[in-house]
Formats: sequence, C-alpha cells, structure tokens
Amino acid sequence: MTDHPKALTTGALPASAKVYIPGTLFPDIRVPMRQIDLDPSAKEPPLIVYDASGPYTDPDVAIDISCGLPDIRGAWIAARDDTDAYEGRPTAPADNGFVEGAALVPEFPGRCQPRRATGAAVTQMAYARRGIVTAEMEFAAIRENQGRDAVGIRDGQDFGAAIPDRVTPEFVRDEIAAGRAILPANINHPELEPMVIGRNFLTKINANMGTSAVTSSMQEEVDKLVWAIRWGADTVMDLSTGRNIHNTREWILRNAPVPVGTVPLYQALEKVGGVPEDLTWDLFRDTLIEQAEQGVDYFTIHAGLRLHHVPLTADRVTGIVSRGGSIMAKWCLAHHRESFLYTHFAEICEICAAYDISLSLGDGLRPGSIADANDAAQFAELETLGELTQIAWTHDVQVMIEGPGHVPMHKIKENVDKQLALCGEAPFYTLGPLTTDIAPGYDHITSAIGAAMIGWFGTAMLCYVTPKEHLGLPDRDDVKTGVITYKIAAHAADLAKGHPGARARDDALSRARFEFRWEDQFNLSLDPDTARTFHDETLPKQAHKVAHFCSMCGPKFCSMKISQDIRDAALDQGMAEMAGRFREAGALYLPVEESSTEG
Amino acid sequence: MTDHPKALTTGALPASAKVYIPGTLFPDIRVPMRQIDLDPSAKEPPLIVYDASGPYTDPDVAIDISCGLPDIRGAWIAARDDTDAYEGRPTAPADNGFVEGAALVPEFPGRCQPRRATGAAVTQMAYARRGIVTAEMEFAAIRENQGRDAVGIRDGQDFGAAIPDRVTPEFVRDEIAAGRAILPANINHPELEPMVIGRNFLTKINANMGTSAVTSSMQEEVDKLVWAIRWGADTVMDLSTGRNIHNTREWILRNAPVPVGTVPLYQALEKVGGVPEDLTWDLFRDTLIEQAEQGVDYFTIHAGLRLHHVPLTADRVTGIVSRGGSIMAKWCLAHHRESFLYTHFAEICEICAAYDISLSLGDGLRPGSIADANDAAQFAELETLGELTQIAWTHDVQVMIEGPGHVPMHKIKENVDKQLALCGEAPFYTLGPLTTDIAPGYDHITSAIGAAMIGWFGTAMLCYVTPKEHLGLPDRDDVKTGVITYKIAAHAADLAKGHPGARARDDALSRARFEFRWEDQFNLSLDPDTARTFHDETLPKQAHKVAHFCSMCGPKFCSMKISQDIRDAALDQGMAEMAGRFREAGALYLPVEESSTEG
Repeated sequence: MTDHPKALTTGALPASAKVYIPGTLFPDIRVPMRQIDLDPSAKEPPLIVYDASGPYTDPDVAIDISCGLPDIRGAWIAARDDTDAYEGRPTAPADNGFVEGAALVPEFPGRCQPRRATGAAVTQMAYARRGIVTAEMEFAAIRENQGRDAVGIRDGQDFGAAIPDRVTPEFVRDEIAAGRAILPANINHPELEPMVIGRNFLTKINANMGTSAVTSSMQEEVDKLVWAIRWGADTVMDLSTGRNIHNTREWILRNAPVPVGTVPLYQALEKVGGVPEDLTWDLFRDTLIEQAEQGVDYFTIHAGLRLHHVPLTADRVTGIVSRGGSIMAKWCLAHHRESFLYTHFAEICEICAAYDISLSLGDGLRPGSIADANDAAQFAELETLGELTQIAWTHDVQVMIEGPGHVPMHKIKENVDKQLALCGEAPFYTLGPLTTDIAPGYDHITSAIGAAMIGWFGTAMLCYVTPKEHLGLPDRDDVKTGVITYKIAAHAADLAKGHPGARARDDALSRARFEFRWEDQFNLSLDPDTARTFHDETLPKQAHKVAHFCSMCGPKFCSMKISQDIRDAALDQGMAEMAGRFREAGALYLPVEESSTEG
Repeated sequence: MTDHPKALTTGALPASAKVYIPGTLFPDIRVPMRQIDLDPSAKEPPLIVYDASGPYTDPDVAIDISCGLPDIRGAWIAARDDTDAYEGRPTAPADNGFVEGAALVPEFPGRCQPRRATGAAVTQMAYARRGIVTAEMEFAAIRENQGRDAVGIRDGQDFGAAIPDRVTPEFVRDEIAAGRAILPANINHPELEPMVIGRNFLTKINANMGTSAVTSSMQEEVDKLVWAIRWGADTVMDLSTGRNIHNTREWILRNAPVPVGTVPLYQALEKVGGVPEDLTWDLFRDTLIEQAEQGVDYFTIHAGLRLHHVPLTADRVTGIVSRGGSIMAKWCLAHHRESFLYTHFAEICEICAAYDISLSLGDGLRPGSIADANDAAQFAELETLGELTQIAWTHDVQVMIEGPGHVPMHKIKENVDKQLALCGEAPFYTLGPLTTDIAPGYDHITSAIGAAMIGWFGTAMLCYVTPKEHLGLPDRDDVKTGVITYKIAAHAADLAKGHPGARARDDALSRARFEFRWEDQFNLSLDPDTARTFHDETLPKQAHKVAHFCSMCGPKFCSMKISQDIRDAALDQGMAEMAGRFREAGALYLPVEESSTEG
C-alpha cells in the first residue's frame, strides 16, 4: 500500500491482482475484477471476486486526484448521439456558501462542459424499454458473474427473488426495463465503472460521507471515498452540509469510479441560510441542475412526505428523524401547502431524464426508534412513494426506494413485503435497520443484524452505519469498519438467498482454514490486514503461518489437526468405504427421518 | 472505576447504583439490580436493569480476590439438610500439569471442605419435581423481572415460547421441573448469584475464557471474569488447557458470582499428555470429581458422538472442528469402541446429581463452515443428544444442549426446530452461529447476526464470539467487544420475542435521544464509556452535552431539533386535534388498508 501526500491509500490488496474482462457485445469494455492468488499447495485456481475499488488498486494506473480518473464512458455516451455538450450553469458564490480566499476549497482544475439530452430521455431505463443493451449494461452484467463459469450450490430461500445462474446483458436490460433494477450513471460522470442495483443481483452497500458544518475537509472526503471503495463500498453518498459543498463535490465526482448520490435539499437549505421556510422550487430546481451538470448519479428526494402525514408523527417517541423529512415537514407546516418536491415532482423527473440521474425516493418519515417502527406515518409515506414511482417510470426515470431505520427483527419482513407491493418491485435501499436502540457506539452491529435479514428478504442495497452513528462523525477507521460490517451483511444475505456465486469465497476460505493455509485464509478474508494482525498478536513468528495449529488450542489440542489425523486413520480403517456404504444405504447409520436432513 | 493491583476493574457504572430486592418466600435473599438514574429534566423514574456484574460494582463491598466473594448460598444449602461436608479428593500434581515452584499458580488460600449429597439428587430439578421452590428459584425469578411492575408492549413473535408477564418463583420451578430451563448452581459454589437459563426467560450470554498452552496467566483470568460480567456476561466457561488448570480454576470459582462451566475433557487430556487414545473412564471420572468439589456449575460433555457418526464427517469441508468432538472421535476410532462418555453416561449423571452440576451436552460434530451446516453428521449427533437428555432427566440432572457453529441465515431456524423436537425442549445453547466464513477478524459480527436470529427463534443462551475467533486469544478489549456484541444479539432477540420488559430500555434511551439528554443517552447504553468517548471525539465541550444538536448535522440541520419545532408549531396549529381526529376516524388521512399497519 502506498500512502500519497493526500493520504490516499492505493495499491493492490494482499496476494491480489487486478484483472480485466472484455465485453462481447462491446469488445472495448474492460470490466475490473480482483483475482486472489492462493498458495500452490492449495491446488486450486485463484478466486475472482467483485471489485468496486476502481483504478486505485491497479498498480499500472498512475493516480493524481487533480487529474481525476480516466474517462471510460465518454465514447459510449457520444456514440448514442442523443446528448449535446453546452455551456452549463455558472458556479455561484452561494454554491460554496459564499466562502472566499484561503477558506475556499480550490476548484477542480479543467472542468469540461456538461452534456444533456437533446430530446427524449437518455436513461438506461429508456434504452432498456426500447430493447437496447448499452455498454453500461454489459459492463454491469460481467461484474455480477465475478469471472464465474460454474454454478455453485443454490440451496437458499429467495423469497421470490429470481437470480439467474449467470447474468447476461439482456437480463440486466430486462430488469431495468421492468423497474426491478437501476443502473445509476449520470452522463456527466464518465469516470464511472457501471454497476447495477436490484434484488436479482448481488446485494450492494453504500457508504455515506460528507463535510459538515461542524468539521472535516475536502481532502479527507476524497480519501474517505477511495478508502471506502477499497474495502468494498458499491456507491457513496456525499451528504456534505456547510460551506464548500460545490467544489468538494466536484473533486469527489472526478475521482469516483462508483455512483455518487446526494441529498440536494441539504445544499439548497445552505443557500437559504438554513431556514426551511425560505426554500423555494426555483432555488431547489437550480440546485438540481447544478448537481446534474457535475455528474451526481442519484438524488435522494423526499417527495413522499405529504402535509397530512405530519400529524401521524405526533405521538412518536422520536418524531421525524430524517433530516430531509424534518426540513420538508417544517416547510409544509409553515406554508400549509404540499411540498414543492411533491407538487413539482414531474419537473424533477424531467431533469433526471435529461441527465440519467436515478431517483432515490427518501423516507422522510422513517422510524428513528424501535418504538416508532412500522407505524402509520411510515407506511402512509411508503404508499405515496409507490405513487411517485409510477410517475417517475412514465418519464423513463430509474427509481429506488429508501427504507428504515430502526426496526426490531420481527417487524423487518413487513417492510420488504410492503415496499415490493406498494412500489412495483422498485429496488429497496435501506439504512440498517437497527434492531435495538440501546447500543450507541455499536450501531454498525445493531444494524448489521437487521441489514443482513432485510437483504435476505429482498433489499437491493444496504446503506452502511458506522460505530459513530448517533454520536459523531465517522473517521477513516469508522468508515472501514462500517464498510466491512456491511459487506458481511450483504454477503450473508446473498448466501441465504442462494446466490449461485456466493458460497465460492466461504468454501475457499474454509478449505484454507482446514488445511492450515494461514496466508490464504488472511488473503481470502474481507480484511486481510486485520486478520493477519490479530493472528500475529498471539503467534507472531513467520513459522506459525505454516503451523498446523493455532493459538486457540495450541499444538496438542487443535481439533482441525486431530480431525485430519482421524480422516487419515479412518481411511486406513476403510472409513471411506463405510461412508460410501452409508451414502448408498442412507439409513444404515441413521434412523430414516434423519436421512433427509441435509438442509 | 478503580483499578486494583491485580488489574481488577470495580466500581459502579456511570450514573448507576446497586440496589437489592429482598425475597418474599425467602426474606433474607438480596437480589442485585442496577439502577440507572436519569437527569431530573427527564421526569422519569430511574431504569432498573438486570445485573450480572456481582459485588464488583457495589462500592460498599470490599474486594480482595484472595478472600473470594461472600458465601450467600451456604445457609440455603445447609437448611435443605441433604448434603454433607467431607474430606474431598486430595489435589494431585497432575491436576496442575506437574508444574512446580515459581511456575505453580499459588493455591487459593483457605479452601473449605466440599459437600455432596447424602442420598437422593440435590439438583434444582429434583426439588422442582417435588414441588419445592428453592431460594435459588426465587432469586432467579426476581432477577428476571428487573424491578418491573408494569408490563410493556408485547407485539413480538415468540415461535412457541411462553414468556409470562411477570416471572414468579413457581414459574421458575415449573420450567425447571419440565426440563425447559436450568438453574446451574453447584452446591460447592456458594458465592453464586443464582440465574435461570431457558427459552421463557431473558436470553442469556456466555463468555469463554481460559489459559492455554500457548499463553495467558491466572490473574488475567480472574480479571477477564470480572471484566466479562461487568459488561453483562451471564455465565463464563473456563476453557483452560495447559498447566496450572486446577489452581487457576479455584481462583476463578471463589471469585465468580456467575455460573462457571468447563469442558472436563480438556483437563483430562492434559493428564495423559495430550494423547486422546490414552484417556480412560477412571481418569475422566476422577477429573469430574475434582471439578465437582471445586464448584463447577456445568460440564460440557461430548457424549453424543457415536462411533457410527464419524464416517458422516468424511466428506465435510472442515471435518470435526469441536475440540472435544475431535478428541473423542479419535479415541473412538483408535479403540473402535463407543466413547466412555457414552457408555458411562449414567455414572456421569450420578456425579452431577450429587453436586447439582448441570450438563451441557456438547455438539462434537457441529459444522465448522457454511458448507457443513445442517448436515447428516450434525443432526445424527443431535438425535443422540436427545436420547441422553432423557437419561439425564431420569437422574434429575439439569440439561442444556449445545449448538452450532457456522450456519447461513436460511438454515438457522431448522436448528432450533430440530433441537426443541429432539431434545424435549431442553434449553438450547449455541455458539453464534456465524452466518458467513469470509470475515475472520470480524466474527463477533458474522456471528451476532446468527445469534440474534437463533435467540429470537428460541435459543436460551448465546455463547459469545470475539473478534479474535479463528485467529488468536482474546485480550481484555476483545472480551468486552464480544460481551457487548452478544448483549446486543440477546436483547434484539428478547425484543423480537416480545419479552414484556425488553423495550423499556430502548424507549428510555430513545426518549433521551429525542430530548437531547446526552448524559442519559450515554448512561442508558450498553457501553456508556464508548458512547461518551465517541461523542467527545467530535464535540468535546461539556456544553455540547446539553446542546440541542449533534455533530452529524450541526445546529442548523438537526432533524430532532426541527422535529420538536414542528411538534410545537403543529400543536399551535391544532395538530394534536388533527392527530386525535385521525385516531378516531382511522382512515381520515389514510386509505383503509393502511389504517391497520401498526406493526
């Protein structure tokens, strides 16, 4: 790992090489994968895994964040010949909170002209509905297969998901056309490595970052981005508040190989000095254009909060905890009108259609405590989100739906069932949910429990929660902990859904564990550095990396060692034959009712 | 917090006071609870929570580990007049691995004579079946109610559990008599604060500790015990291997207010130089007596592993991962006989009956990987454990059943369903399960997901997993992380089961959060120190402890603040009345189908 002056961490992960798989329909596309090489003694091929880390883990790519990442989509977009470059909206002082001089984050050098549609919608959904397979779609399809030819064991419970043995570009197209998946890819974000979000694909995770009124800087933000995707974040949301928002976001986008989402309302509120009542449609619309031209891939829009929903929160323990939701609720009450997000929703869709910005319909009334989970306010808003989804789809705009929040385990499935039913199977994107309120400081864990379950039930993307949730701003370590924790939740969900590729990594690591291939065990894990460090705290010697025991039991007691001795001994004693006879006879060693318990 | 020379952490937790509730049937019993005091502005009574931490958190109790804890059960045991003190087995050099001189952990000073039954079984089950309510039973019953009078909201899904609104001593008795619960309490462990383990009580957690051949010392072990129960461990298991086992265990027991479990096989194997084939029933039996006289409360016995089960593991990815299971499997194959644990099981029960040692029937064939979950070997052994349970019950011996291990989410419920059916609803005691194999270094999290779910489905006690699982020996921080993580899983399970008292703490903390009572939020959390530290990293000033905002959003953006403003404003606008009308009319603001979504 190389630490750049800007504290960027680049370079390959241990024993890993970046490999690129070309397209078939689009031979020029190069889909990045991470190949994890194993010890020769393993007599196994390398394991190829999904790789969201971008060029930063490719030693052959020179990284300079003031140049940004290479443009890989420009040619595809131009070839479609349905967009034009134009002058674009001039940056206004308000965009950066009127900050000046040394306090102003420098503009990203060499900004190019934005593009927008010349006519009809230029969204992946519009193409999909016309039967077109785009380069983005093939790119995303290849990623989903993780270089896999064989189909793994599929004994999961999918709750109605329909994950194919292999993902084809046409399958991606059809899922997007049906609204069951989105491919967030603003035409002004050509650095993007396309990916797809949907219930019938690998479960994805999002990492939030962003400067705030209280603290944190632009360079930290780009570093957090690179750091978050290094560990597996599939998308990031820039939730910056305070000043320098515009320039910071430009630096993030030009260096982001993953989709970037925002909550435009946050910047709009900054522009009116933080007074919700002073927000107007014109100012909000202008902010949408500003961010659309920069290349933001998805917008969180809290258009589902209706005036008549607000009283439903009156008896809640924690009221309205969504920032966007509370801002709009205050606006609605102050003006006693429906919000401009709701009344101007069609125009919002037109903007999204002209740049291919996906909508992430915000759950402004999500519960903020176990006490408020699944209440009337939450589900009333969800129904409105379903209505808005239909409107967005008439504009060919891609949509996902945001979900809770704080939900005890027994109320989680109802959230997925209702969301699928009310929102036409649009992808669900949930925050956690936290399954208890009593562990601030550990809410990455209280929420990983809920996230794994809601992912299993059908949530397409899980928004991470860090240990600092409710308490403070995540630092570098918190971001990593949040991302790894959510990779665990997403993978546990894929295993339980019976994803054809999910078990390959578990089995490879378990074989390494059983065969005492310590280095392989570290290298195959989600966080090789931590696994190796923990091991070395007790058994530092290099010799122990090949030792046929570990520190838990010591040499004499190692169950795996004994187990291997047993296997060898038993084989001498014809155990294989015995086992063989068992497999034939089925009930030879077991009562009949047990002979079919293989889960 | 006071740090003793022996690194013991004592003293109350923040804003907490130790309170004692007297018995009714047994007025002399004093049941410890932790009272968490809230800020006067809360206008709420203090919250009383379950307290497993023992006298160490009572400032009025002087702690000296060389004196051990006060004897609180001696009089109760004597009053039953069914046991005698006797000379006891002399300590043999082999008990401490023949270690001598400076390397020998000193004997605990002033050992008193052990007691044993003069005739019939002296187990809590024997008393319960005779209709007797013991002091231990009333003690445990009072603990379960956590000083609660009111019954909380019970909207959970209990999967057949039958948790009463309030736990009575008679209910504890009846659950023990039915075998659905155990109260582990060796008559030679008078320092014990009795507690009950069963599906119809609060979900409990166990923390493992123990010296190993590779590292760690006696003082560390007592400190780990005190540290583990400070954060909420309900029982501890001493899994020591290597030397000094006997003396270390004596120090642990004399200072343990919680039940202590062991795997006697580990010490027995030490006595034969780590050669499984050399184990004999006589040596094992002698080890059981040795530990019974010291006061071990429950024994893990791997008697369910039958000779014919071994071939069922031949095709596993990770073979036999249970240490006890692999040792006995090797013995069985070497002698080509059923294990002495199986053939002498009745004698094991007689020993347990004479000291009231609970049996924890070990799952020697539990899966060690996702690939091996719910396989024929695992469930074949589980059926044998069911048969052994019936035998133990004929001896009035209390029994719980150990469970996996590594299990993907979709295969977890089958484990509980089979265990309840095959083992007559004896309490289930599971390790995790880990829901994926790919995150060594984070297995407290991969397993917390499975632990919360399996607890919800009906597991009575969850054995913790620390971040060091598979990699090394847990240190102090790992033990705390493991315990807090498992308190989260157990509490999430209680919430989902609809335990009448579970939500009180969530709601109290959520109210504190909504009202910006930062100190209350910290003090009500499972780990006040970490919550406060994380908050102060971003907002150190004391003033911020009363600030009506936090670092995530800053002053202008705080959704809770805005939400409160909305509530006030809305109240002026008659929102309360609107809300009231909504509640009467039901569908006034919502379509009919939404009016019944209150989860």
